[in-house]
Amino acid sequence: MHEIYIFLMAIAIILIVAKLFGEVAVRCGQSAIVGELLAGVIIGPSVLGLVSETPVLAGIAEIGAIILLFEVGLSLNIKEFAKAGGWAAAVAIVGVILPYIFGYYVFLQFGFSSTQAIFAGAVLTATSVGITARVFMDLKRIETQEAKIVLGAAVIDDVIGLAILAVVLKLVSGGVVTAGTIAQVSGMAILFLIVSVGAGLLIAPTLFKYVSKMKQDQVVFIMAVAFCLIISAVASKVGLAPIVGAFAAGLVLSSTEYKTEIRKRVMPLYVFFVPIFFVLMGTQVDVSVFNPFIEANRTILLLTAVLFAVALISKTAAGFVVFKKGVNKLLIGVSMVPRGEVGLIFAGIGLKNNVFGCDDYSALVAVIMLTTFVTPFILKYLISKDNK
Amino acid sequence: MHEIYIFLMAIAIILIVAKLFGEVAVRCGQSAIVGELLAGVIIGPSVLGLVSETPVLAGIAEIGAIILLFEVGLSLNIKEFAKAGGWAAAVAIVGVILPYIFGYYVFLQFGFSSTQAIFAGAVLTATSVGITARVFMDLKRIETQEAKIVLGAAVIDDVIGLAILAVVLKLVSGGVVTAGTIAQVSGMAILFLIVSVGAGLLIAPTLFKYVSKMKQDQVVFIMAVAFCLIISAVASKVGLAPIVGAFAAGLVLSSTEYKTEIRKRVMPLYVFFVPIFFVLMGTQVDVSVFNPFIEANRTILLLTAVLFAVALISKTAAGFVVFKKGVNKLLIGVSMVPRGEVGLIFAGIGLKNNVFGCDDYSALVAVIMLTTFVTPFILKYLISKDNK
Repeated sequence: MHEIYIFLMAIAIILIVAKLFGEVAVRCGQSAIVGELLAGVIIGPSVLGLVSETPVLAGIAEIGAIILLFEVGLSLNIKEFAKAGGWAAAVAIVGVILPYIFGYYVFLQFGFSSTQAIFAGAVLTATSVGITARVFMDLKRIETQEAKIVLGAAVIDDVIGLAILAVVLKLVSGGVVTAGTIAQVSGMAILFLIVSVGAGLLIAPTLFKYVSKMKQDQVVFIMAVAFCLIISAVASKVGLAPIVGAFAAGLVLSSTEYKTEIRKRVMPLYVFFVPIFFVLMGTQVDVSVFNPFIEANRTILLLTAVLFAVALISKTAAGFVVFKKGVNKLLIGVSMVPRGEVGLIFAGIGLKNNVFGCDDYSALVAVIMLTTFVTPFILKYLISKDNK
Repeated sequence: MHEIYIFLMAIAIILIVAKLFGEVAVRCGQSAIVGELLAGVIIGPSVLGLVSETPVLAGIAEIGAIILLFEVGLSLNIKEFAKAGGWAAAVAIVGVILPYIFGYYVFLQFGFSSTQAIFAGAVLTATSVGITARVFMDLKRIETQEAKIVLGAAVIDDVIGLAILAVVLKLVSGGVVTAGTIAQVSGMAILFLIVSVGAGLLIAPTLFKYVSKMKQDQVVFIMAVAFCLIISAVASKVGLAPIVGAFAAGLVLSSTEYKTEIRKRVMPLYVFFVPIFFVLMGTQVDVSVFNPFIEANRTILLLTAVLFAVALISKTAAGFVVFKKGVNKLLIGVSMVPRGEVGLIFAGIGLKNNVFGCDDYSALVAVIMLTTFVTPFILKYLISKDNK
């Protein structure tokens, strides 16, 4: 009975602090997500210790990330999304190369080994589309040209990032990295997206025509969620992040006549699951690495500051490869800045494989957190300036 | 990545089979729940083995049970519910005493020990309000007089059942059961309901007036869910089933002006979480105990048949204590028949404490399953007859 108590209380606390801190953020003119992340930091193990991650909460948060990207996919128009494809690819590729080179160089300058530097570079390449998508959603900007390029770039980035991760892991485990391995991993990812969206577009309209004839309440909505979960599961099976599949599923269903109905019903799931995902991300932050009064932290603080500047500038620069009139290049670049959950996963793998020690790991986590915290503020500012 | 695949696929499969089997049930004029339970039996370990319970799925199913009872509480009117209180108590008390005596007697007749008989009696006392509530919901009968008496009785039954369980567990662990222990456990349960509903009625209107002024989307709904989870958690803390707290929370919020809004938003959560609960209940059934071609199963089959008859008749008889005009006594009695999850939990505790062997445990599980399967059919029939 004690476990059930902890479990139910954890979800209740997460939902309440998410809404309270989210409210403060909204009233300060910011996106609710900043409040939710901060709420997570405060109730997490490094401050109050009210909630810490358990397998059940992690599972629910995983559904949160999936629902988030599903809704992002649903809100898009697949034809317009395809149009943004070329620019998205350009932004993604430059947005991987620049942070990688700079991250690698900074780590070497601070006296780390080349293996550590290679891994640190990889950590900085990932883009967390979740944070940015949420800001665009909160500000009702999800259907702009910029949002489409950014979301496309983030998806391509995810594909490239997973290829890099596979390659880096081979390096760590002493394996030989060949052009063949790289081609195989990346090829798989790209193939998955093309096949899943293509097959989905062929099957979904007929499938959901039958589903819509079923007599139970909200059956189209539940079957759409099941469809999304299956594609997410298959994505994880081929070594991709499940959210890539969720995004593909949303994209497929956005072209059906049931789009509006599904989106309306998904919203209550969204407001339940998604804040759990963001608050749990916040709980994984250890604030003690920021304490400047501890002598040993100073080099780490300097490393953090330099890496943060590099992380910010290198992704922002990627936005400027879009040579298209009327597009806010700065907005695109800044949108690519947050590393979020993908960066955290990379850093965690580095720690687990003894590539990173506690110091450099903490620095990377701090940078990931800073990019995640700072982006919504800058985006909000840029969008409000854009409106004038 | 493999774990995520299994997890996401399990939820997708559960949702899809729930809707497909539910559809068949609905088209056959039955409640969707019969289909969902059967879907669980078929995908469960004893038939196809597609899905088996994991801690994460159990956690999600727990939320399903909580959302179900929350919605049941929300759909009621607290004043009318209080009016049904006296009759509900009478039905509950008789519905505990009769099955207990008969279950005890049958077990002794089949040559089991008196400890086993005492435990078996206890297993038969529990009423699973979930199944009945769902049937009433599906048939849009949740606001009838009969439904109110049954739901009230089921809640009181749960309170009595947990007192019996605590007492029986003391017996098994060699402790001394005194009138004091019994009074303490039961007193705690009753006190909890009175205090939580009373305090809730005082606090909730003011609390939710502030919440409704918050600027985020669907904030009243999410705070209502958090409120429900907290009361459920507290219920589990004082040794009650969490669903008792969820029911109390729903009852409290049903008297506020936000009732309609909360119910509308809860529905998508309901259609996502609740089928997961029922399908998982189905997966826990082992169909091999029903195989009559295995010699050793015959005594168990006879025991099962006799226990089933006793379980059916004794709870049905409890409905006839309601001496009120215009009330369908038979409908009330039959509604009390399903033992569902509460009975399963009791039987499981008996198995874990070595009170039951595999044989008698299987017989009890079969009886619980039969009462659960058969009730929606009888209820459907009685309600359709009532309409003429």
